[in-house]
Amino acid sequence: MAYRPDQVGRYFVGVDGGGTRCRAVIVDEHNRILGVGNGGPANPYQDVNRAVSSILGAIGAAVDHAGLDRAIYPQLIVGLGLAGVNVPSVYKTVALWDFPFFKTYLTTDLHIACIAAHESMDGAVMIAGTGSCGFCSVKGKTLAIGGHGFPSGDKGSGAWLGLSAVQAILLAEDNLGPKTLLSDIICEHLQCNVLQVIERLEGAKQSDFARLAPCVFLASEKGDQVACQLLADGASYLSAMAQKLLACKPQRISMIGGIAEKMLGIMEPSIAGRFEPALQPPEYGAVMYARHQFCA
Amino acid sequence: MAYRPDQVGRYFVGVDGGGTRCRAVIVDEHNRILGVGNGGPANPYQDVNRAVSSILGAIGAAVDHAGLDRAIYPQLIVGLGLAGVNVPSVYKTVALWDFPFFKTYLTTDLHIACIAAHESMDGAVMIAGTGSCGFCSVKGKTLAIGGHGFPSGDKGSGAWLGLSAVQAILLAEDNLGPKTLLSDIICEHLQCNVLQVIERLEGAKQSDFARLAPCVFLASEKGDQVACQLLADGASYLSAMAQKLLACKPQRISMIGGIAEKMLGIMEPSIAGRFEPALQPPEYGAVMYARHQFCA
Repeated sequence: MAYRPDQVGRYFVGVDGGGTRCRAVIVDEHNRILGVGNGGPANPYQDVNRAVSSILGAIGAAVDHAGLDRAIYPQLIVGLGLAGVNVPSVYKTVALWDFPFFKTYLTTDLHIACIAAHESMDGAVMIAGTGSCGFCSVKGKTLAIGGHGFPSGDKGSGAWLGLSAVQAILLAEDNLGPKTLLSDIICEHLQCNVLQVIERLEGAKQSDFARLAPCVFLASEKGDQVACQLLADGASYLSAMAQKLLACKPQRISMIGGIAEKMLGIMEPSIAGRFEPALQPPEYGAVMYARHQFCA
Repeated sequence: MAYRPDQVGRYFVGVDGGGTRCRAVIVDEHNRILGVGNGGPANPYQDVNRAVSSILGAIGAAVDHAGLDRAIYPQLIVGLGLAGVNVPSVYKTVALWDFPFFKTYLTTDLHIACIAAHESMDGAVMIAGTGSCGFCSVKGKTLAIGGHGFPSGDKGSGAWLGLSAVQAILLAEDNLGPKTLLSDIICEHLQCNVLQVIERLEGAKQSDFARLAPCVFLASEKGDQVACQLLADGASYLSAMAQKLLACKPQRISMIGGIAEKMLGIMEPSIAGRFEPALQPPEYGAVMYARHQFCA
């Protein structure tokens, strides 16, 4: 993207914030990447103070990594793409936050992921990670699906897989559901017995359940029917979401997130075959968004 | 139950503590009910400080109702039957609490409900309220089923119905699930639109989801298929739990809790027909338990 005179001497920062972690990138006015930084959970629907703290931590780390002084904060033009800000009240809370930057532009994690995936303001993207959701932007019309938060929404996500797996092993423990390899695999993962799993998950958040998702893939690889059924159910939901997005006729569609690749392998082949790799990481989409808004 | 000389001048208190509220009763050494009192949520798995505060509030109200002075606290022999203390670490935390009473005996809400339902230390009981669980005590052998907490366990409960209903209306909103009357009914109940439901449920606890259960019964009465399927699924789980308890050959079985009567009406008739009314309220079972332990 060409730079304009009013961008000279400016730094652009992009932040991708999700339920488990966030990532920041800082570029100069020529779009050269100067540094990157990581932070903790940054979904303000779950915890707004923690999200802001994670975001500031990631930006600080990126600025340090770039070898810059934090005194440049008032020069930064920041794009934030955050999970949870699809909820209007959450958007408003973050948008009104007094960030110490020159400009701060806020949008959803889905929006910046979409921009990044296609290096364009148009396209479709799905996220299958801690949460799940879909987004499409075609000729100024947008469609957002899912992303309603855990545990009410986010079917087919890592957290949904983890919670569903825990529900299954508790049913099996009470002999009210089929026996499953998930019991041994999750107990080994958490280093406890089935009844202690509940203690370990006291106050568990979306990200805690998502950490159990690899147990479901492992059980499925060993042929466990309960795990296979959970994955088939989640993949079927993601396939249905993809069909809705494809109906908008985006030029490209991509899926990103911690379990995206594995879920694509389970989804209906005629749909999964339509997906193409994301061209850039989401935080770069946040940079593109900030630059686009600043120059608009 | 006959009183023994060492009970003279003593007061016995029973407390039934659940996820939504707790209730206390105080009786004299002749088992005469002197007063009752109510308190807030008392599931220490969810929040131990709040649970203790609710318990003390309910006991205080019962003592006041009895026209007694709170100076008698050091004379009280208290039985606490609490949700959540089936989790060993939670049991330990509450058991070590420094209550200001002469004696405090702790057990599960299920145990005291069972004692109360049959006016006996033997029998079987199920709870279908905010949560769901089953318990059986026959000739010294006990069996506890479910009660693993929300959202991992407690299938067929009010909270499970509420959460499942919210999941269903979000799927319907995205056109990824069947349309359901639940959308209108829940929105009217919460006085908002479907997307605002998620905002309203930000940080929602088990009891908040349980408050939506009446919406599911209402939709079912209007013939809504999604609601009917949810109720059938929950009732099927409760029927399976009942079969496990009946296999222990208890002399009686009862079901209590806010949605017990409605769920019994949906459960398999051959199983539902085995249930008999609870003879006493659970808090009275906590009195019986305290008296039994004190005299043991």
